[in-house]
Parts: sequence; C-alpha cells; structure tokens
Amino acid sequence: MFRLFWADEGGLPGDDRGLAYGDGLFETIRMADQKGVLLSRHLERMVRDAGRLDIGVSRGDLANVCIEAAQRFAGQFNGGGWILKLTLTRGSGGRGYRPSPGMEPNLLVSASPLPPMPDVDGEVIDFSKVPLTVNPFLAGIKSLNRIEQVLAATELGASLFEVIMADREGNLVEGTRTNILLRKTDGWVTPPASSLAVAGVLRQWLLERLRQRGEKVTERPVAVDDVLGPDCHGLFLLNSVLGIVPVRTIAGHDLPVDSGLATIFNPLETLE
Amino acid sequence: MFRLFWADEGGLPGDDRGLAYGDGLFETIRMADQKGVLLSRHLERMVRDAGRLDIGVSRGDLANVCIEAAQRFAGQFNGGGWILKLTLTRGSGGRGYRPSPGMEPNLLVSASPLPPMPDVDGEVIDFSKVPLTVNPFLAGIKSLNRIEQVLAATELGASLFEVIMADREGNLVEGTRTNILLRKTDGWVTPPASSLAVAGVLRQWLLERLRQRGEKVTERPVAVDDVLGPDCHGLFLLNSVLGIVPVRTIAGHDLPVDSGLATIFNPLETLE
Repeated sequence: MFRLFWADEGGLPGDDRGLAYGDGLFETIRMADQKGVLLSRHLERMVRDAGRLDIGVSRGDLANVCIEAAQRFAGQFNGGGWILKLTLTRGSGGRGYRPSPGMEPNLLVSASPLPPMPDVDGEVIDFSKVPLTVNPFLAGIKSLNRIEQVLAATELGASLFEVIMADREGNLVEGTRTNILLRKTDGWVTPPASSLAVAGVLRQWLLERLRQRGEKVTERPVAVDDVLGPDCHGLFLLNSVLGIVPVRTIAGHDLPVDSGLATIFNPLETLE
Repeated sequence: MFRLFWADEGGLPGDDRGLAYGDGLFETIRMADQKGVLLSRHLERMVRDAGRLDIGVSRGDLANVCIEAAQRFAGQFNGGGWILKLTLTRGSGGRGYRPSPGMEPNLLVSASPLPPMPDVDGEVIDFSKVPLTVNPFLAGIKSLNRIEQVLAATELGASLFEVIMADREGNLVEGTRTNILLRKTDGWVTPPASSLAVAGVLRQWLLERLRQRGEKVTERPVAVDDVLGPDCHGLFLLNSVLGIVPVRTIAGHDLPVDSGLATIFNPLETLE
C-alpha cells in the first residue's frame, strides 16, 4: 500500500525521496468528468515501471484512488475535461541514495485544468538543442527525473509547440512531452521503446491499433533525413492528454499534414 | 530571493517543480557545531549551477540561511558533527515542463545526523552494474535527478562501501556519492569535470591543493585497467562529508592503501 496525500491539502513530507532524488514516477491522465482516457494503460504502466524501480504498488489500490479522486475533483471542472496527476515516490527514508528495505511509498494526487489543445491543422515544431540521454535501466519509465525535458521545454514558445530531442548519434527520439510517429512510403516508423526516455501510453495504444488494421509499423532509429526527406508523408506527435497531433512545419521545413489519423483513431474517446 | 521552508516544519508545496521533475539542485554540507566544511565552495557551486539552470539565487542570501540554520539546528547535535542540507528548486508553477519567467525558487533546509564514517584503513568497493549517463548540459550539476545513483546504491551493503559507475564506453566516472582519484606512477589521475554527473567540492579543493604542492594532476578518462593495472598505487574516493577515503579492495582485487593523503590534506579541518 502507500501513504496517500491530496495536493489540495498540502505536499509530501520534507524528507520524501521524490523531491530528494526524483526517486519515483508519475502519470498525467486526461479525465472527462469522472472517466479517464486510456486509464487502464496509465495504471498498468505505473505499476509495471514502479516494479522496475522496486517500488511496490498494486493496480487495485491505484484504481481505487482514481475513483476517489474523480469524485473529489470532477465537480470543480463543471463536468468537463481536467487532468488527474498521480505522483508515486519510494517514500521517506533510506541512507542517502540507498533505499531501506520495505519502505512505504508516498502517493500525491492532484487535479488541474486541461492545457490548451493543439491545432488540428498541424503544429509548428523544431529540433531541440538539448540532447536526450537515456539510461538503459530507466528507458521508457516516466520517472521524476525530467530535468532534460525541462531544459528543452525552455525552447518552446507561443509559436513553437514542441521540440524533438535527439540522442548522441543524432537520431530523433521524442519531444519534451510527446512520442513521434512518421508516415513513410513503406509504412509507419517510430523509435523503438528501448531508446525512449518515456514510452507513452498513447504510442503503445496507437501502434496496436495500426497493427490490428494490418498497417505496417516499424520500430527503428529515426534519422533527421527520415523526417526531412521526400518519402516522409507525415509526422505525428503522440501524447495521451493532447491526442494525435500532426506536424505542419519542422525547423522551417513544411510537411504534408494528414489529419485523418486522429479522426480514424481518437484516443480521447477511449474512456474508462 | 526564495521562499524559505524548514524541513522540521513541513515539506515543499505539492506543486513544487523539484518533486514534479527534479527541477532543482542540492548541497549536503558537513557541519561541526556552527561551522561548515568547505562551506564557501558548497555555496559557490550551488549559485553557479543554479545559474546554469536559470534558477536565480544569491550567495549572500544562501549564506544567511546557513547562519540561521546553524543557530537553529547545531544544538540538537550537542556541539558535534551534523549534516546541513539545502534543496533549491525552481519553485511552483509553469506550464508542464516549461517554466514560467521570473518564478520564485523554493529553498528547503534540513538537518540530519552524520552518516557512519569510513574505515581509515581502506574500504571495499566494486564496479556498478548500472551505467552512468551524463547530459552535457547537466554535467557536474548536483541536480535533483539522481535516480541512476539510487539504482546503483541498491548494490551497496554492509560489506560494500561504494560502487563505481562507468559511462557507455566503459570508462570509470564516479561512485554513487563520491568522485574518484588515482595515484599512478606518473602522477594523479581523475576523470575530467565535463564527464562527471556530480563535480564534487572536495574533488576541486583537493586538485587545487595537490597542484599547489607541485604534484602532477591529469584530468582524463579512467579505464578499468588504470585501476587494476600494476601502475596504480592507490585509489581514493572523495566526498565532502566522508572526506578522502582510500580503497582497499575493488571487485576482489586488492589495491595498495595509502592513508597519507587524508593526513596531509584534511578537508574536515577547513571550517568556515
């Protein structure tokens, strides 16, 4: 189990390891009144990745908190959309970096308004100056160690929706808050999960849907030329709160915009 | 300036970015009653590295908090040694990862007992299974993104004082909480600051002292063979709380132990 904290009543204790070391992980869930978009996948990811960090939490306990949170917060947003955030940390204590055995995790639950929604006609993005480093022990985990994304996000502005971060070899990996998916002449392409800082739940959901329809989906490193070359028929940003976002322009280079993908597959209707 | 929080009165607000993203940095200062070991260097590092993260804080304000903290906490430790911890975050707010301009930082101040002191006859250590990844934008910064060190620290135990983490090329970079210094036949060797996750204040202090005495100090990548080969005359772990720690055995391989370094240069006497 965990110690439960409601953010509208205060924060976590001063010795929480989430603050001290980023020793924890989080989920940001788009809610429609009391239902969550891809809620099961969010909970599955949190339980699985907490396990990789040896933080014990059960899906049932998390699901119960989500029900309680929905009842507590949904009314504040007049029955409309809002964001439910779960921050799970290893808890308090340990000797420096070294955790103690059997620590009780802390769970902080908060609600906030929806962010501005993206332009369905496509957004303008760029390449980030900040490289992305991914430790193989942490690949894909939405941990609280996100300072690289914070630095890259300082490049964003009113006219720049997202920046794409590359690894040391120059391969494009992901945006600050989005995974990337390309439509190429020979099918869909996205970087492999093992290379990702955060393996998004929308990414996984969409790859499964595409494959179910018999579409060819390849997980492989993505070079800049994959995006700028003539066989790129569209670039999409994936985020479970923002949905499937087509890119109109990257680094001043116009891309074909296909709004059809978001119409065929609307994750925002997958409410649970 | 910053909002000041005393850990004995509570933690940071629930929307603090230090918890959310590890968006901040910290210093752990060894105190002797009301004086701090290498205190100036700790404060200089925090101000400099906060500046690299665009978190504005003045040295004078931090120094005043340290004086206030010493008066507040020292008595609890009967005039002996204790640990003063400063956790500085970017504050509350922003849009997701993206900070707002002009945010007010939060500073959390806490006190804790000294950890067990190392064996002056040398400690037993090993190589870590967890690789270290260092983003060049963050090299050396003691940020709150320390989950790699937490994972590596789970390898520690009663009979294992430290583990040394290597980069992707297999070069030894640093321990979970220590920098490394080798005594080789042709002088002292330590990995360059640009390769470090955390550039320790004791490391910098000691390198300056060695150079002042005319000793040869080379900052270059350190291979495993540098440590295990016959021209290694000693390996030292550096930590401003623990001091200069000679290594007796690494991965079952015995090393020459030279306790003289810690005798000649005793950082724990550098009180301010």
